[in-house]
Order: sequence, then C-alpha cells, then structure tokens
Amino acid sequence: MKLYGFFRSSAAFRVRIALNLKGLAPEQEFIHLRKNAQSSPDYLQLNPQGLVPALIDNGAILTQSLAIIEYLDETHPQPPLLPRDALGRARVRSIAQAITCDIHPIDNLRVLQFLSKPMGHDAKDIETWFNHWIKIGFEGIEQTLASDGKAGKFCHGDAPGLADICLVPQVFNAKRYPSFDLKPYPVIMRIFDACMAVPAFDAAVPEKQPDAE
Amino acid sequence: MKLYGFFRSSAAFRVRIALNLKGLAPEQEFIHLRKNAQSSPDYLQLNPQGLVPALIDNGAILTQSLAIIEYLDETHPQPPLLPRDALGRARVRSIAQAITCDIHPIDNLRVLQFLSKPMGHDAKDIETWFNHWIKIGFEGIEQTLASDGKAGKFCHGDAPGLADICLVPQVFNAKRYPSFDLKPYPVIMRIFDACMAVPAFDAAVPEKQPDAE
Repeated sequence: MKLYGFFRSSAAFRVRIALNLKGLAPEQEFIHLRKNAQSSPDYLQLNPQGLVPALIDNGAILTQSLAIIEYLDETHPQPPLLPRDALGRARVRSIAQAITCDIHPIDNLRVLQFLSKPMGHDAKDIETWFNHWIKIGFEGIEQTLASDGKAGKFCHGDAPGLADICLVPQVFNAKRYPSFDLKPYPVIMRIFDACMAVPAFDAAVPEKQPDAE
Repeated sequence: MKLYGFFRSSAAFRVRIALNLKGLAPEQEFIHLRKNAQSSPDYLQLNPQGLVPALIDNGAILTQSLAIIEYLDETHPQPPLLPRDALGRARVRSIAQAITCDIHPIDNLRVLQFLSKPMGHDAKDIETWFNHWIKIGFEGIEQTLASDGKAGKFCHGDAPGLADICLVPQVFNAKRYPSFDLKPYPVIMRIFDACMAVPAFDAAVPEKQPDAE
C-alpha cells in the first residue's frame, strides 16, 4: 500500500487519520501542491484528476478521499468508521459530505489561486471568501450536532468515525485566519478536542508529516 | 417518503434519477432556490445546512445527495447502484465525488451569487469561472473513463449506477453556456447519451419536473 499525499492537503489529512485508526502505515510519496507536482505527467498518469490523495493497494489506484476511506473501511473493517445501521451511515456520510462537498472544495488551494489570478482578488478578498464558506457550513453542522441527539463524545456516538475524520482537517482550515471566530461552534470544538486526544488524529496533523515545511 | 427538491438543483436531480431507477415515487415539495426558500426558518429546521435535496423516510430526515443515494441503495437494493466488489465501489464513488466534490459545489448557485455580490464579478467572469471548473474536472473524468478499461455502456460496466447519476446532471450544467465545448469528452458524451435513453434518467430532467419554469 502506498499513499500519495501532501502535508497541507485536507483530503490527504483525512486519509491519514483513517489509515492510523485502522493501524495501517503505507509507504508515502509527497506531491508538492504549491509546486504544482499534481500536474506533472507522471502523477496525472496515476491520477488524471490531478488531485491528492491517491492510494495504491495491490496494484489498484484509488482516488478521492471519501472513496478511499470507505474502501479502507470495507477491506479493513476494524474499527468501523461508519455505523451499522443505514440511517446512521446516512447521517455520518451527510456530515462528512457537508464538509467535503460544500465547504472544502470551494476553499481549496486551486480555487484560491484562481481567485487571485485571473479573477484579480487580493489577500483580504480571499480571506473573506475562505471564512465565508466555512461559516455557512459550520453553522449547519453545529446545528445538526447540537440538536439531533446523535452526537456523543464524537460526531456519531462515542467512537470516532468518518464524520470526525472530515471535521478535524476542516477545523484546522478554520484556524488559518485569526479573523475566523470559532466560539459559535461549541459542539464542533468539543468534538475536535476529543479527536485531537486520539493518537490516530494527532499523528496525522500536517506539521507532523515528513514533508511538512 | 417525501423529497424536498428544486427542478434546477443538480443534487436533487441526482436523487430523482436514483429514486426512478429504484421505482420509488415519493411525495415532493419544492424549495425555490432562486427565491431563497432554502433559508426559510421552516426549511432550516428540517435541514440546517440550508441545501436541497432532503428526503424524509419513516420520519427520519436525510440530507446530502450522495448520502441519500447510498441510503436508498442499502434500503432498496434492486437494481444496485454500486458494484459488488470493494475496488469497483471505490472507482464508482471516486468518479461520483470528482463531480460532487470537485466540480459542482464550486459552480453552485450560491457561489455564483457570491462572485457577483460582494465579489463584484460580471456575467462574463462568472461564465469563465463556471466553465473552468467543469473543464478541469471533465478532463480527468474523461481520461479515467477512456483509459482504465472499466467503462462499458455506462461509467462502470453495462448498467447505470452512482457515477452515471452524478455525470448526467453535470453534463446538463456543462450545456448551460454554448461557450463550453463538449467535443473533447467523447466518452462522457457517449455515456450521457446512453443514460438519456433510460426512462429513469429522462423523467428526472429539470424541465420535466412539476416546479419547472
């Protein structure tokens, strides 16, 4: 098993947490997104989407973080990252996708770069943009976690799973600018703190990766 | 079962296709996104994320289109929307997520509205933005479909599934501006045409919905 990632990539961060929770430690190769290594011919041959992460398992190439994590959960079932019941799985996937579809891609590096050039925005505009989409997304997630009675120590009950795996990297992103106020999200932050006390999450943080700058 | 949707929403379009493939015809309620009905207190009570679609099944509220479709596939297994093998499921989910994470949210109505105000962009800028993200995404998907030997009549073999369900609404979006050239994507368009010949896809198109304008 081999993981292609980048220390600052939220999507790679998710997969690192899942691998750690499963007790898997693949070989790693680092694709430097700020140097545009994801657009090299060699990497595009591997992943035509030009994104990290990618995972190679038994010669097969897997892409997209949620697809990779569900694959890991199916092929290495312990500990489970999704609940056993269909409604619980739908709830966890929905929280995960509220982050991975409706917050993170809009704030991704390539989008911010496009806002700068050719769209002509300065750093202040980009900060406003970045924080806006996290705020809208976190408001909905906080409300869900606070009100539907399903959160426990973690997003769904008392064991960490797919929703937590997506939440933690997004909180790291939310801390990027001090202008983003995390106080309106006490449940998100309580769960974030619980996750960070779990070694599998802590070992996956960007600054602890071999390619960290 | 009750579906909250909007004829122009790509995410609701996906769920309509899945429901049609499963032979399910829930009651429908229409949330007019251009009139901001998704932000009404009543709808936010139902879905704090303020997005469509939402599905109510036996009193439970489900949100996020992919989570809803996987739930439908688990609770109504025939016909299956995902392959039986873990690698096949990972491939189909990856193609689906290449659209639902990395194209569609960046081009979503609320993002385009934010580009207009407060970001100050005109219609021409927004068209450039809109087409740019589809082009980047389609290039990767076309390459995958054309080269990995897994596509058949549809994205994965010869039966329609989750990847096709996500691809078709995105092709509808790609046709929004005549300036977007679909010729570089012959495999995507061949599969799109095969899907549109399936009644479950055809009946789900925006202009055939009761709330179409």
